[in-house]
Amino acid sequence: MRLLDRFRRGELRLTRIEALSDGVFAIILTLLVLELKVPALKDHASVGELLHHLYEALPKFVSWLISFAILCKFWLNHHHILGLARHANYTMVWLNAIFLLGQSFIPFPTALAGEYPTNPLAVSFFGIVFAINTLLFLALHAYIVRHLIKPELVTLQDPHGLIKGLVGPLSYLAALAWVSVHAAFVVYALTPLCETE
Amino acid sequence: MRLLDRFRRGELRLTRIEALSDGVFAIILTLLVLELKVPALKDHASVGELLHHLYEALPKFVSWLISFAILCKFWLNHHHILGLARHANYTMVWLNAIFLLGQSFIPFPTALAGEYPTNPLAVSFFGIVFAINTLLFLALHAYIVRHLIKPELVTLQDPHGLIKGLVGPLSYLAALAWVSVHAAFVVYALTPLCETE
Amino acid sequence: MRLLDRFRRGELRLTRIEALSDGVFAIILTLLVLELKVPALKDHASVGELLHHLYEALPKFVSWLISFAILCKFWLNHHHILGLARHANYTMVWLNAIFLLGQSFIPFPTALAGEYPTNPLAVSFFGIVFAINTLLFLALHAYIVRHLIKPELVTLQDPHGLIKGLVGPLSYLAALAWVSVHAAFVVYALTPLCETE
Amino acid sequence: MRLLDRFRRGELRLTRIEALSDGVFAIILTLLVLELKVPALKDHASVGELLHHLYEALPKFVSWLISFAILCKFWLNHHHILGLARHANYTMVWLNAIFLLGQSFIPFPTALAGEYPTNPLAVSFFGIVFAINTLLFLALHAYIVRHLIKPELVTLQDPHGLIKGLVGPLSYLAALAWVSVHAAFVVYALTPLCETE
Repeated sequence: MRLLDRFRRGELRLTRIEALSDGVFAIILTLLVLELKVPALKDHASVGELLHHLYEALPKFVSWLISFAILCKFWLNHHHILGLARHANYTMVWLNAIFLLGQSFIPFPTALAGEYPTNPLAVSFFGIVFAINTLLFLALHAYIVRHLIKPELVTLQDPHGLIKGLVGPLSYLAALAWVSVHAAFVVYALTPLCETE
Repeated sequence: MRLLDRFRRGELRLTRIEALSDGVFAIILTLLVLELKVPALKDHASVGELLHHLYEALPKFVSWLISFAILCKFWLNHHHILGLARHANYTMVWLNAIFLLGQSFIPFPTALAGEYPTNPLAVSFFGIVFAINTLLFLALHAYIVRHLIKPELVTLQDPHGLIKGLVGPLSYLAALAWVSVHAAFVVYALTPLCETE
Repeated sequence: MRLLDRFRRGELRLTRIEALSDGVFAIILTLLVLELKVPALKDHASVGELLHHLYEALPKFVSWLISFAILCKFWLNHHHILGLARHANYTMVWLNAIFLLGQSFIPFPTALAGEYPTNPLAVSFFGIVFAINTLLFLALHAYIVRHLIKPELVTLQDPHGLIKGLVGPLSYLAALAWVSVHAAFVVYALTPLCETE
Repeated sequence: MRLLDRFRRGELRLTRIEALSDGVFAIILTLLVLELKVPALKDHASVGELLHHLYEALPKFVSWLISFAILCKFWLNHHHILGLARHANYTMVWLNAIFLLGQSFIPFPTALAGEYPTNPLAVSFFGIVFAINTLLFLALHAYIVRHLIKPELVTLQDPHGLIKGLVGPLSYLAALAWVSVHAAFVVYALTPLCETE
């Protein structure tokens, strides 16, 4: 009983939480490339045919690049906020698990938007998933800042953090309203730059 | 010889066992999403057709969510019991390996139940696999508590741990008896919550 | 220049070599399950049809189990010999990389033997790959023992280690000579037990 | 604000950057084998048919081997240069992310060159990807040497490092000019050896 109490009061080691999270991030980053499939060529030695297939797969390369950039941004932010915590507790582990659930879902909308770049639902779905991921991240962030922050960092916290954090979801959602599929892609690609710090 | 003796007496580093286990957990959590395949659309730009396919894939999303939640629960419990051990030994490494074997099998029944949610065997199989995994976990737990527990934690151990641990397998197996496929899904989804002591 | 010298004299950190190796082991262990594919059922709700398909996939489950057990054995031995080294150097890193190359190949013969369990070449191939892996492991082991062993462990080394190490490859190769496919499977399954310690 | 400043001045922990990078390397190394598919045999027990299929898959084995060797070389060099840095900063994290992006792309050209070894575009593409990866690595290297190098290592840096580093991209690109597909494969295979230290 008392062991469980100690456990709740912060015996969960942050290092294993980081190890699990880094593992999940590393795998998602690398799995994304599995969506780039080797095309079936009629003439195996034909340069023109292969070039044509690679050109047709361009939306897949673009969605791969955007997801990779956004995932790196999430990893960096995740790295940042875990560094603020003085220890871990159960609630944080579950908020982190739900955040990783959202992250590990990303290969699916990436593949969908890469396969059907002209389908408004496929492209919106991509945006919605990233908006939800940002909200899950903000929940984890808010919890750490309120309950687990290292005492020496309390006064250093940026009071505008939450508002800036909403730039992400708002721009993902705005992209949906634009209807234009190309515009949406551009907004998605710009998001990691805008949010920087 | 004496080296091997020292080895058996606890030279196995817990950190590498944790690293391997975290790696396996991270990969399973992430691989689950590979079962969500991009549907083949006749009209690439059709929102209705894509929506229909996503709706049809709903059981896959549900089984993915349930497996993700249960895996996180296993990871958390695993994290907890490895923290109880003062060192590792050969028997523990093999019990841990067998536990990881059970965990790494999970994507298969998850895919099976997601693909054939109306098939009682597919759904029961899902429950049986989780019941076996819980038993493998309990074996590892019991071994650590009996043979490897840190001296300062001996008195802190919860005497009802084993009985509470059986809630999991019993509820998985009970779900089988219910025959109803929908009811079984609900029970599986509730298990990680119930066990959270 | 002098930096490179220092580098050669042992500046390579063992921790990153272990991290890479653990990552590779964790991924191979987990990827093996991807060979277990969800069968295509005509009647989605038919228990009998699914049972029949699962029964037919039995050789895949067996080859998965054998590979998992042998991989865990390799991981444990790898863990053991890296613990003997006082530091890493370039030669060791490359021997380790070649060993990991052999390990990461394992999913292919596992899938082959699981798909064609009655094909003598498929089953022999499985044995040959494990024999080669054991030889790659012995090369890494011998190099560490001769060049990198911690001074305090020199006298503790088991002089019969190399000879015992050959039990593995010899039994894998013996299995080939037996011609009988079932006998070979049994020998493969027994090897990790025989070699224990 | 000040927190962000501290963050920029070096609060990013190198260990998590290494953990993410090691994870990405480990996964790429292991994913490469997924391109080796189990062939479809008409006669499941036929040794001759399987031998024929394995022989036909030879280019895939060769491209797998070459990519594995080059990836290990990149990992070793990456390990080396991260060891030079006294801490991490935002720019380095992003240069590292772009480098990992390039690395995680490698399974695609590897599969392409293995599938179409007689297609000059497929083989050149393989070379171009490795040339770009080497340039991304040199960018990361140059940044660390200029901005983040540990004070005690400044005088030890090899002034010819950059020039030697260009051997790689030049030989990859030279291979393209050779037109001959076989010659290109040989050059790719030799590169990791030439570059050694």
